[in-house]
Amino acid sequence: MHLLAIVAHPDDAAIFCGGTLAKHADRGDRVTVAHMTRGEYGGLGSQSEAAVAETREAEARAAGEVLGVDDVTFLDFEDGRVTDSLANRLLLVDVLREHDPDLVLTHFRDDMHPDHRATAGLVTDAYYMASLPLCETDHPPCDPDNVYHFGKPTSSFEPETFVDVSDHLDRKLDALERHESQVEFLVEHGGIDAEFDNLAESLRAEGLVLGKQAGCTAAEGFVPLHETARDYLD
Amino acid sequence: MHLLAIVAHPDDAAIFCGGTLAKHADRGDRVTVAHMTRGEYGGLGSQSEAAVAETREAEARAAGEVLGVDDVTFLDFEDGRVTDSLANRLLLVDVLREHDPDLVLTHFRDDMHPDHRATAGLVTDAYYMASLPLCETDHPPCDPDNVYHFGKPTSSFEPETFVDVSDHLDRKLDALERHESQVEFLVEHGGIDAEFDNLAESLRAEGLVLGKQAGCTAAEGFVPLHETARDYLD
Amino acid sequence: MHLLAIVAHPDDAAIFCGGTLAKHADRGDRVTVAHMTRGEYGGLGSQSEAAVAETREAEARAAGEVLGVDDVTFLDFEDGRVTDSLANRLLLVDVLREHDPDLVLTHFRDDMHPDHRATAGLVTDAYYMASLPLCETDHPPCDPDNVYHFGKPTSSFEPETFVDVSDHLDRKLDALERHESQVEFLVEHGGIDAEFDNLAESLRAEGLVLGKQAGCTAAEGFVPLHETARDYLD
Amino acid sequence: MHLLAIVAHPDDAAIFCGGTLAKHADRGDRVTVAHMTRGEYGGLGSQSEAAVAETREAEARAAGEVLGVDDVTFLDFEDGRVTDSLANRLLLVDVLREHDPDLVLTHFRDDMHPDHRATAGLVTDAYYMASLPLCETDHPPCDPDNVYHFGKPTSSFEPETFVDVSDHLDRKLDALERHESQVEFLVEHGGIDAEFDNLAESLRAEGLVLGKQAGCTAAEGFVPLHETARDYLD
Amino acid sequence: MHLLAIVAHPDDAAIFCGGTLAKHADRGDRVTVAHMTRGEYGGLGSQSEAAVAETREAEARAAGEVLGVDDVTFLDFEDGRVTDSLANRLLLVDVLREHDPDLVLTHFRDDMHPDHRATAGLVTDAYYMASLPLCETDHPPCDPDNVYHFGKPTSSFEPETFVDVSDHLDRKLDALERHESQVEFLVEHGGIDAEFDNLAESLRAEGLVLGKQAGCTAAEGFVPLHETARDYLD
Amino acid sequence: MHLLAIVAHPDDAAIFCGGTLAKHADRGDRVTVAHMTRGEYGGLGSQSEAAVAETREAEARAAGEVLGVDDVTFLDFEDGRVTDSLANRLLLVDVLREHDPDLVLTHFRDDMHPDHRATAGLVTDAYYMASLPLCETDHPPCDPDNVYHFGKPTSSFEPETFVDVSDHLDRKLDALERHESQVEFLVEHGGIDAEFDNLAESLRAEGLVLGKQAGCTAAEGFVPLHETARDYLD
Repeated sequence: MHLLAIVAHPDDAAIFCGGTLAKHADRGDRVTVAHMTRGEYGGLGSQSEAAVAETREAEARAAGEVLGVDDVTFLDFEDGRVTDSLANRLLLVDVLREHDPDLVLTHFRDDMHPDHRATAGLVTDAYYMASLPLCETDHPPCDPDNVYHFGKPTSSFEPETFVDVSDHLDRKLDALERHESQVEFLVEHGGIDAEFDNLAESLRAEGLVLGKQAGCTAAEGFVPLHETARDYLD
Repeated sequence: MHLLAIVAHPDDAAIFCGGTLAKHADRGDRVTVAHMTRGEYGGLGSQSEAAVAETREAEARAAGEVLGVDDVTFLDFEDGRVTDSLANRLLLVDVLREHDPDLVLTHFRDDMHPDHRATAGLVTDAYYMASLPLCETDHPPCDPDNVYHFGKPTSSFEPETFVDVSDHLDRKLDALERHESQVEFLVEHGGIDAEFDNLAESLRAEGLVLGKQAGCTAAEGFVPLHETARDYLD
Repeated sequence: MHLLAIVAHPDDAAIFCGGTLAKHADRGDRVTVAHMTRGEYGGLGSQSEAAVAETREAEARAAGEVLGVDDVTFLDFEDGRVTDSLANRLLLVDVLREHDPDLVLTHFRDDMHPDHRATAGLVTDAYYMASLPLCETDHPPCDPDNVYHFGKPTSSFEPETFVDVSDHLDRKLDALERHESQVEFLVEHGGIDAEFDNLAESLRAEGLVLGKQAGCTAAEGFVPLHETARDYLD
Repeated sequence: MHLLAIVAHPDDAAIFCGGTLAKHADRGDRVTVAHMTRGEYGGLGSQSEAAVAETREAEARAAGEVLGVDDVTFLDFEDGRVTDSLANRLLLVDVLREHDPDLVLTHFRDDMHPDHRATAGLVTDAYYMASLPLCETDHPPCDPDNVYHFGKPTSSFEPETFVDVSDHLDRKLDALERHESQVEFLVEHGGIDAEFDNLAESLRAEGLVLGKQAGCTAAEGFVPLHETARDYLD
Repeated sequence: MHLLAIVAHPDDAAIFCGGTLAKHADRGDRVTVAHMTRGEYGGLGSQSEAAVAETREAEARAAGEVLGVDDVTFLDFEDGRVTDSLANRLLLVDVLREHDPDLVLTHFRDDMHPDHRATAGLVTDAYYMASLPLCETDHPPCDPDNVYHFGKPTSSFEPETFVDVSDHLDRKLDALERHESQVEFLVEHGGIDAEFDNLAESLRAEGLVLGKQAGCTAAEGFVPLHETARDYLD
Repeated sequence: MHLLAIVAHPDDAAIFCGGTLAKHADRGDRVTVAHMTRGEYGGLGSQSEAAVAETREAEARAAGEVLGVDDVTFLDFEDGRVTDSLANRLLLVDVLREHDPDLVLTHFRDDMHPDHRATAGLVTDAYYMASLPLCETDHPPCDPDNVYHFGKPTSSFEPETFVDVSDHLDRKLDALERHESQVEFLVEHGGIDAEFDNLAESLRAEGLVLGKQAGCTAAEGFVPLHETARDYLD
């Protein structure tokens, strides 16, 4: 199986679905993380956007390695300036077709961050067009099975699908620590994202609370684009 | 695995979860249907309650046979008069302990029918007490894994868990037809339950719409009491 | 009375509100269907977009005839590429003014299909501007009474207004069958829309379930943009 | 047509549905108001319960006269002590059968006042049993068409059905003023019900806001137990 | 403390938050109202857009004086044509930075009016970018504490935060009356906004109903972008 | 100010509102915790109910001391058998009157635990009757200002009011540890409440997540029975 996570910024994969990616990678699934931007706005002002981007791309690659991600790519959108346009939608259609995933993981439409919201819109709309033969792009049509949206449990996001990441929470937090440039930034500029001295402690608490909600030690939560039926109750 | 469906009236099992019961029975799970009442109010007035009860008990047994149910029991509550009292809750605690199921299926708390609502309340509250060693009843404590609630897709019930019953819809409708005494009754007294000349046609339509919602031909829908985590996205 | 349905694709009118349109037409209301696009993406790849568009326009005209639609028009937007821009909004303002309807029927804002969503946005925003004298377009201001949104009962759409189409369900399905080019397409590319071998069977099931919800044999469901008061309870 | 409003306390009919009752009475519908209690707890302590009950019964009769109510009855439950028991449900079954209404108006299940909530539960559950031939009470079975629930727009109650009472708001307020014993009581003991010096001003404001919501000058709002289909959009 | 209200049209500040602005001004807070547009579409057709804009700007300044607003500004967007683009978002980033407020008040994202919706989107997205050092505009970064959204109680807007404006309701209505050009316009073109002969009466009713909901005589309601904790229950 | 927390079981006060109680106690507010039951069902079977009750009462008193609670009382209901009857409601009316609190804290009506639900029902209904002079009990009428409901963030409970307990989280956890008899019990019988080896770790995670939601380090969440207005935005 091939999972493709499409995230807005370099640290979003670890934050939102790092445990799930690691778990799928561990069982041999192919895992790709495509970053819309290099997060070049995530600097304190003493560095140029280019320098921030370079640092954060490296951090994303290091975090991907921790998680066992097979392919870490960057889609060259600009941080803070992702827009949900028809042209960008077609770019995403081709991204989907190029990677031809079974499942797509991305942000959700009502996320408060504008880049997250635009990414969610582009990915889900591209998902509807990716299978159309007459919508031509560089790669041939593809037809992923479903899209799973992630978000913060502290936003309006209400997860319906929980993945048990009890055995992968430590790895998620390890991946998070690869994004060391963001620690100081979030303390200064993260707004509600930076109340904790220790971002890892915050994510750990979220994992435990979601786990409690779902009957396991630690979990990550998702909302599927389409409901799916299961074979038996369990 | 042992599934215990606790339903208010003789035809509720076929109507609400007949496909799911048949499917589990087919793979070898143990399936029990416990009826709170014999549905003795479900007569046109020309018969006594006792005669109606006898007819409907036989229909429930015939339907259970069609579905492959292992055990069809009756709990001797009175139709239209199930009440959510502490005494009745303790009776249900002992019912759970006697059958010691892995999963319990029952109505949901906001169902419009008073017997359905009382049954849902009794079962879920009994579920919380069934494991307590100091709450003594005839049978020893038990600890079912979860409760799944069912309801009409046309009520306020919103299913979250869908079971693919594409291959069992015909059997569900076959079981429904065992409840032949109810056809005339529902046409006369069923209120909103009897718009269709053919109750089977109505249930078939519901199965198809739920199936469409969940990506398969036909489905039944449930709301779990507790969320559960899964191991992998699929 | 004049009803104007503004739909994204040629088969949307029959699918979403065919029974209601036929019923209004039958009592002598004027009924117009304006198609944003000709659905030219709805081909299997063996035909050009132009050929698909030609086929589907003809199908829409045939379906409109079945439903008794007075006027079938095409607004020349591109399939899969309808965007909710200010320029397009002004185009829709003029469409509303040209047709001067009493009621407008269209998609709803949270539909999952991007063209449906863009159409819903354009129409409702145009509705707010169509009455403004200082917002000048080719036709004079108009002031429709209300907008009714339609959607799939299997999406997040929750109908509040139900129209009894018990006597028009067959005609709706007859109109649907005029869109014969889409049968093969939807089976191949319809995703969740194509689980049924027979699209007509799916729509029939939806009509029956909505009818059951509303106390009649078959219904179509809508969400009004503005609530309206009634004179008496009934 | 016969409307039966079943309310917990003497002033509830005027407060919650006085305009609608007056409007139906004006066009010749038969209108009955059945009061569960005489509101004997609604005194300041200087009077006995019996004296309060006498005063309030007279006020309810005077208000009923203003509204054009045909029949004002009292069901002899105790104020503040209405309970949702099986025995009381059967009493309500017989009340429904005795009056044999087409429509029933009553409180809603999640109202914060315990008497309102118990009344709502008793009435809706009795509604399900009133048509059953084998559920025997003093009067023969009846089968009302629907139940409409009312509540305060300032509670969790969210009206879906609006009745235009623009021409009957003054009469509603006139009826309200018949309950003069409650003015002082509510100021002293009404909690959140008594913020306004002038209760009539409060009800007038609610009517105007509901009217604005529904496109008329003044409205009252209801939630139907069962959805109903309409013939045409308007 | 500095409050900045960013509203789409000249009369929106008085309508949606006039009481709150007056109350904060009275205790010495700095209050700024920034108008996206001059409301130049709000004319009957006998005047040019420019003439309407001039009239309405003067009305907004007069209303601001009544409310005690320190600074009334106009951002030069076009009425009916505010779009939620990246370029406009950057303009709003600079507006926030120029005024450097502690709190921002604006419309909510699901308002039905397109200008209100676009304004809400621009302001909340700008709020996320205003603190970023690498997002350069004319003024230095700023970091407001929170955004409060307002809307009509008759829309889908559900207020969570209530401000007691019992002592400022008269002043709000006084400010409203400064917008005298809109009285005739709204009667002709206001749609659901103009059911009342007297707009002031409508707003007064809304204030009373919100007040009743919140335990005071009159209130205005808001939804905060971010929840905030309080120190003690009260 | 006097806060009265009415909880079902001995450990509920620490779990649900321990931080808030400690904070109010610290500033000199009077704090009372009334326990409906002594939690005598919370034993492993090796002890009698009486022995369990004795142990847990002592634990509750020790926890109350840690939190600075002024008065710890027990209302002598039976664990697992609290019922929402009229007689019990009157008992609670007298409990409210005896303690005459300004604010009441208790469970919420849709909690999954039957004792929690019954307690919530009894307390809120008693709250409506406690002020009525004609409803006579042992103590004179009282009129608390509001009721605040608490619940688990992992249930359907959605807090609207957050109290910053950043400086009192350690004390809450310290109080929790006084309930040492429950650690083994919850591991064996706690169902979804016992996923964590360490209950304190679970509560700490919940406090951090609620804190993140509310912009502080740690919080507890409540739903007020009545909304309240505030004087100013902040």
